[in-house]
Amino acid sequence: MEFPVYLGAASAFRMTFTKFETIPLEEDGMDVNYLEKKLDELNKNGLINRVKFIYTVPNFHNPAGVTMSLEKRKRLIEIAEKYDILILEDDPYGMLRFEGEHLPSLYKLAGPDRVVLLNTFSKILTPGLRIGIIVGRADIVRKATLAKQAADLCSPSLNQRIAARYLERYDLFEQLKPGIELYRKKKDVMIKALEENFADIKGAKWVNPQGGLFIWLTLPEGFDTMEMFEIAKEKKIYYIPGEAFTIDDGKSSSMRLSFCLPPEEKIVEGVKRLREVVEEYGKKKGLI
Amino acid sequence: MEFPVYLGAASAFRMTFTKFETIPLEEDGMDVNYLEKKLDELNKNGLINRVKFIYTVPNFHNPAGVTMSLEKRKRLIEIAEKYDILILEDDPYGMLRFEGEHLPSLYKLAGPDRVVLLNTFSKILTPGLRIGIIVGRADIVRKATLAKQAADLCSPSLNQRIAARYLERYDLFEQLKPGIELYRKKKDVMIKALEENFADIKGAKWVNPQGGLFIWLTLPEGFDTMEMFEIAKEKKIYYIPGEAFTIDDGKSSSMRLSFCLPPEEKIVEGVKRLREVVEEYGKKKGLI
Repeated sequence: MEFPVYLGAASAFRMTFTKFETIPLEEDGMDVNYLEKKLDELNKNGLINRVKFIYTVPNFHNPAGVTMSLEKRKRLIEIAEKYDILILEDDPYGMLRFEGEHLPSLYKLAGPDRVVLLNTFSKILTPGLRIGIIVGRADIVRKATLAKQAADLCSPSLNQRIAARYLERYDLFEQLKPGIELYRKKKDVMIKALEENFADIKGAKWVNPQGGLFIWLTLPEGFDTMEMFEIAKEKKIYYIPGEAFTIDDGKSSSMRLSFCLPPEEKIVEGVKRLREVVEEYGKKKGLI
Repeated sequence: MEFPVYLGAASAFRMTFTKFETIPLEEDGMDVNYLEKKLDELNKNGLINRVKFIYTVPNFHNPAGVTMSLEKRKRLIEIAEKYDILILEDDPYGMLRFEGEHLPSLYKLAGPDRVVLLNTFSKILTPGLRIGIIVGRADIVRKATLAKQAADLCSPSLNQRIAARYLERYDLFEQLKPGIELYRKKKDVMIKALEENFADIKGAKWVNPQGGLFIWLTLPEGFDTMEMFEIAKEKKIYYIPGEAFTIDDGKSSSMRLSFCLPPEEKIVEGVKRLREVVEEYGKKKGLI
């Protein structure tokens, strides 16, 4: 799994698996060299068969906001083929691109023998439906269907029909355009606010995402965003501490910010207050 | 688990557990003496801690159609208390009683320290919603919620709201009355048809359920209802072979019949054709 990890996937995987290897994310996606080294090592130790799949959120990663470059997508596929490992490609945000060029999915590049593609209606129609999409080799999808049936007798037919009728009647891409434009504007407002309020904090950095819903803000070393959250709450600032995106609840100096719900003026005010939070906590701890 | 087992529960449990002990069902519910003997035996062998819970469908069991008597409910609770084992009471059909007196739930009799009660809107509102109900001790329900969240981020809020609004606006018990009356009539039609068509087959027997959706029909020894299903399909008769309600796909001379969907005349015609199926298969196999 990429690190920071998408916590929903981690929770789901934990129901079946006990051990996870995390691969750092870089600005252009998963550190594929690290991945290859890690797999080489597992192979040398005779543990390569324990690797069930490589899980990745290639577009506008949750929470990291980064997107995997085309070059890295190709490298990732090469590495997966070298060790015959399945790639689980989770792409809930791919359709929410504000800028830059659409990149082909791993599924499109490598096909169903190498990649299982997951998607959802949660970010492009409505989150309350809870209808997911799986695209892959027939035998794998069949197994997933059986597991889903065993778990809950499958997703509600009402919800599946709502999603199906929507796709029949509307052009989803057209319908999404105003939403994407709205998110893009809000993202720009938050990035501008971060530049105005955090540029002078040495060691603070953030990712400017090309799409999706999240900005990943990292504070200088020594900051513990979980501990800092107490101060944030007092100032009515809510973020998700980076600790939530670790496998072992490790301390983190990062946090996930979301720009999709609040109106623009609240984003501006929120980032300003977040700066106050950081200053208060940083001074108390002698960090800035 | 009671035998025959409810297959949906068996599938769900199989995702976590590998070993099941089945307790035979009698006309008045689980054979509690058998249960006690089995638990005594496990206790003697130092295996009692492996027993995670006792799963029961006390009302109008699926597929067996039987209902646990009040006396047995009390005995079951005693036995569970003796070995400090949790009871998982699954009651999807309890509100669909046609005749006889309503019996108190195990949960009502023993309380949340001993029993977790499961229910669903599937049989009393609409099956497509897939909204379940859990009633139990706060810490157990909390754990179930966390597991559900890990599995699928919880049931769709849309569906939960539909169910909640329905309960707010309507008297569920009143709304159910016409449905119960409809099912009762259809059940009576099927029981009468079984008496007319199967009374002369020695060894054939069936349960006359006081509620719910199913009749469990058992044919004389030697019948394999899975094998017989091929002949049934030719005559456009569909039942669920008893094999589906075993843990190990064991052969079965029983089958589950459902009377809820077809109109009365089709029930009459269906049972008549089922008799033909049984005769054809029975003669071919030298069983009748």
